[in-house]
Order: sequence, then structure tokens, then C-alpha cells
Amino acid sequence: MKVVVAIDSFKGSATSAELNQAVKTGILAAFPKINVETFEIADGGEGSMSALQSGLGGNLINVKTVDLMQRPMRASYLFIDERLAVIEAAEVVGIDKIKPNEKTIQKATTFGLGALFLDAKKRGATEIILSMGGSGTSDGGLGLLEAVEAEDFSSIKITGLADVTNVYAGAEGYAKVFGKQKGGTAEILEQQDRTAQAFVEKIKKERKIDLQKIPGTGAAGGLGGALILLGGKLESGFGKIAELLKIEETIKMADLIITGEGQMDFQTAKGKVPFGIAKLGEKYDVPTIAFCGSLSEDLGEMNRVLLASYSIQRRVLPLEEAMKKEVALKNIELLAQNVLKLWCYGQ
Amino acid sequence: MKVVVAIDSFKGSATSAELNQAVKTGILAAFPKINVETFEIADGGEGSMSALQSGLGGNLINVKTVDLMQRPMRASYLFIDERLAVIEAAEVVGIDKIKPNEKTIQKATTFGLGALFLDAKKRGATEIILSMGGSGTSDGGLGLLEAVEAEDFSSIKITGLADVTNVYAGAEGYAKVFGKQKGGTAEILEQQDRTAQAFVEKIKKERKIDLQKIPGTGAAGGLGGALILLGGKLESGFGKIAELLKIEETIKMADLIITGEGQMDFQTAKGKVPFGIAKLGEKYDVPTIAFCGSLSEDLGEMNRVLLASYSIQRRVLPLEEAMKKEVALKNIELLAQNVLKLWCYGQ
Repeated sequence: MKVVVAIDSFKGSATSAELNQAVKTGILAAFPKINVETFEIADGGEGSMSALQSGLGGNLINVKTVDLMQRPMRASYLFIDERLAVIEAAEVVGIDKIKPNEKTIQKATTFGLGALFLDAKKRGATEIILSMGGSGTSDGGLGLLEAVEAEDFSSIKITGLADVTNVYAGAEGYAKVFGKQKGGTAEILEQQDRTAQAFVEKIKKERKIDLQKIPGTGAAGGLGGALILLGGKLESGFGKIAELLKIEETIKMADLIITGEGQMDFQTAKGKVPFGIAKLGEKYDVPTIAFCGSLSEDLGEMNRVLLASYSIQRRVLPLEEAMKKEVALKNIELLAQNVLKLWCYGQ
Repeated sequence: MKVVVAIDSFKGSATSAELNQAVKTGILAAFPKINVETFEIADGGEGSMSALQSGLGGNLINVKTVDLMQRPMRASYLFIDERLAVIEAAEVVGIDKIKPNEKTIQKATTFGLGALFLDAKKRGATEIILSMGGSGTSDGGLGLLEAVEAEDFSSIKITGLADVTNVYAGAEGYAKVFGKQKGGTAEILEQQDRTAQAFVEKIKKERKIDLQKIPGTGAAGGLGGALILLGGKLESGFGKIAELLKIEETIKMADLIITGEGQMDFQTAKGKVPFGIAKLGEKYDVPTIAFCGSLSEDLGEMNRVLLASYSIQRRVLPLEEAMKKEVALKNIELLAQNVLKLWCYGQ
């Protein structure tokens, strides 16, 4: 009997690796002989670098740069096999570094990411993966472009990982869709979108590239668009990470898959980790169940691809208490044990 | 495939019958062909009369009497087959009728129960079952004895249902164990216990009955002791109700049992409904699972007799919201569905 565990982080509570381990502990306490394989997993947001390191190894290279507010800082990227650089945008331009307001959104820049790109090139990287989620920037990626403009990246394969498919400008553009949560007022976002529209036109003329036709160019405040201009491409974060970690090959051989995320609702089926995992389960006819912090009544398409879903909550607690790491980990451990007892009965 | 559902009420939230029905709805929505049999169940506290009526039928007889504060009221008891009277003490002397304080505990009397006993006798009852849980009285049952003292109950079989085994006086007596939650100060309870001790001595001399040697005489503020003096006996509420409803015969034929209660912890194994149900399951090798509002880490002996246990909570909510009937019923319905999906997979 083989169980594959691949749970996304519960944001603000526990990491993917911690949750996987707690589930494994719960299962093995009741059934020591079950083969439990865990995958640290992410969707192109925070935790992506850690997930890839857990599966592929590599060294963390520490570089001097500036953060999104141009304050000096040091940031690390992952360098695998002296070949593949994995950069997590949020390390440098993460929204958690600021309190978003109308000043931050106008000042925030992706410039600081340039130092990591340049360092990777200098070390001979032939491929760069940039996980784009969790950014506090809304600069259209122009900061990064400015930082690396003296260099030629055409010989390096660049892949941007996103969990959204927005385009660069307009109603579905970065300013209008994500600008508000980054602190923008209606006026500021209108102005940012006009800039984005003009940039789209300029690029269309000068480079024959239409940023409005490429899904994901609006990710991370337009950082997706910048990667296209550097010759890169954009992929679903989950898909690329799952491919690199060879999750599919393991799922193929599994009897049961356990996935999950902090808050599962109808949006989960729009490309989040549990949906990706469950789709792989469906492909190989392996049942997938989900463990979540919070579970909506309406799970949309998830209901079809999941065998069942459970919340880890065991009682009524204040949110702050329920989200404490040790509470969440104990809860998911006990849930895993009780679910496996049911699963194994009579198998 | 046959599933037996017998969940105790979630106090302050939903009744046994409502919870059973929600579970049945959840199961049938996913698996219309499963045979789901429900038992309304109780442990000798509130809901016992309703549970017996749901299984055995009978008429509700309405009687004029007084409540525990001697305020005029009307109360109903259940009369089955013109033979068996089922009286729920809490209908007349329930703690929910008062705000317990040092005045109520000194005034509260079981006198009003007498009218129901007398009415049942007048109608020709040959058996009286008194469910004792949930009382606000601490009068040693003397009120009831006074109310019926002119009548002879020796030809009527009387059974008191309790979920506790305390004796009449002393450290394990009704005053010392339950008096505090009924509003007694240390001083009042000391005085009540002295009265109880004296009564024990008096009865020992006059009737050769030692109330200190009969488990349950301290139930419901000593009401258990009064029943003994009327020639009755005391039984575990769950055991008697399960016997009358013939739950055992149905469980014998089941593939899966679902039980539960509002709050499950290490005390559950001390005679509460889920423990009784799970023990019957164990006897016939039928797996039992529990659905609860709140689930402790430490379930004591329950862990051994249950296959698995789940909380119905789906997210973090304020207590008041989580206990709303419609929230609890929707949650348990969805949980039942998700648990049965796992259970049925591959069966």
C-alpha cells in the first residue's frame, strides 16, 4: 500500500513540508507498514524554491541587492547542478516586506531581482526559473528590465511560474486586477494601466510581440511581461514544479493521494496545487482526498476530481489559535490517522 | 450495505433526530441505494422521552403541575400502550428553567413530578420510566416523596434512568458533586449534605435500605434515592433506551455504525451514548465511527472501541455561529457524505 502526500502550505500557519510530515507521522503511528511518500509542493508562489530544493537539491547562493522599496538587502536563490537557477521573486519583492499603501505601490520596483539574474548568468546558468507569486510590485516588470538591460539573456532558458493567467493591461491587466490589494487607489491604478497600455503598444511596434495575447504577462504586477521580453516563457507554477519533481511518476504507482491547502473553495479548481494533484490522480485512476484548514460548501470542479475532502479543525477556536503551527500540525496528524483507519478497514 | 446512525443531541445546537436525518441525507445524496437506519437516542437526560417516542410511539399526556420553583405549569409525559409511562424529569424540574444561584438551589423541589406519577397511576400504568438528567434540583428527591406519599406505588415497576452512578450523601453524594453547578455555596452544600447523611441513617433504620450502597441514588439531586424508596430501580439511561428501542438487533446486521455527540472527550467512555453504541458495535464486530462538534485529543477508552472519529467543523467560526442548528446540520451532512465516499470506495 502506497500513499502519496503533497499538501500546499497553509499560509500563515504551516509549510508544505511540515504538513506532509505531520500527515506521514499520523499514518505511520497507526499503520507502520504503509509506504508514505511526501512531496513538498507549491504553485509558483512562496515555497516554490523550497519545494524544488527538497526534490532536486542545489545550493543557496546569497547575493547583495535591494528590496522592492530599494532598501539594501541580501537575498538567496537556488542553484542546481551548476546549471539551473531558481529565483523566488517574493524573496526580494514580496508583499510581506511592506504595508501596502498608495505610496508603496508607486515606489515598488522589481529592480532588485536583476542582481540575482545577473549573478546566475555570471555563474554560467543555462536556465532560470522565476517563481512570481506573492509580489508587492506593480511596475510592469520595468525595474527588472532596466537592471539587466546591458546584458544579453537570449542564450538562457527563462521560465516564469505563475498561478494566474492575466494579461498585461486593460480590464484583465496587472493594475486593474491586482493593484488594489497592493495599495493602489482607483486613480493610481487608472494611471498605471495607461502606462501599461502604452508599453503594450510600444512593444507591439518595436518587437512584434503582443503582450495582451500571452496569458500570465500580467502576473506579479507585470513581471510576467518582462520575462517574455527577456525571451522567456510563462508556465503554470504547479505544472512545472510537478514535472521537475517527477510527481507524476510516483502518483502513477500510488493507491491513495492526499493533497490540500489552507482554504479550499471554488477557486481551487482554477489551477491551484490540490487541483493539479487531483487531476494527476484522475489521470491514473488513483483516488485523491484533500485536507484543508477551511472548506467551502461550494468546491466547484474540485468535487469531481476529489474522492473526498476534510477540514482539519477539531473544535471551535479563535482564528489565531486555530492557525498556530502546532495546532494545525496536530490536527492534520490526527485527521490523517482517522481517515486512514477508515480507508484501510477491510482493504 | 446497511448503515446504522445513532447520534446523541449536540446540546444547544441540534437534536439527535435532526443530526441523524442530516447524516442520512448526506449519505443518500451520494449513495441512494445504501440502507440507512436511524435511531433517535439519549442517555437518560433530555431527549430520552423523545427517543423512546420515536421508537415506540405512544401519546403525550398533558398534566397540570408546578415547576421546580413551584410556579404553576403544564407538563407532558409519554404514555405507551396504555401501560408504560415515560416521564422526563427536566420537563418539570429542568435546570434550564432557572438561573441557578444560592436561592434557587435551596428552593428547588421535585414536588411537581408527583402530579405526573399520580396521573400515570390513575390511568393504570404498570411501569414508569423516569429520565433523570438535566435537573436543577438538589432536594434529595424529598419533594417527589412528599407529593406521592398518600399513594402506594408498590405494584408499579419504576425505573430511573441516569448517566451517573453517584450515591446519595458524602463526598460522592448529590450535594457535593452536583450542587455547585446548581448554584450552591460551600456552606449550603455542607448543610444539604448533612441533611442527606441524616436521611440515609433514618432510611437505614426504618426501611433497612442503604442508599449509600446503591449506585445512582445521588442522580438528579437525590431523585434517584427517592425512586428506590418508591420500590424502583436505577439503570444506565443508554442501556435501557437501547434495549427498549431494540438497537442491538439492528446493529447486529449493520456494516457500519455512525454515532456521535456534541463534545467528545475522555469522559465519553464513562457511559455516554457514543460509548454504548460503539460497545454494541464491538460486540458484533461492526465498525463504529463518531461525528462530533468538538473532539479532544485524548479520547481515552473511546479510541479503542471506535474505528475513527471526525469533527464536523469545516472552518474557523465564532462559537455562536458554529453552534447554529443550520450550520451544524449542513456540516454533518457534508461530513457524512465525504466519509461514506471514502468508506465505499473499493467496497
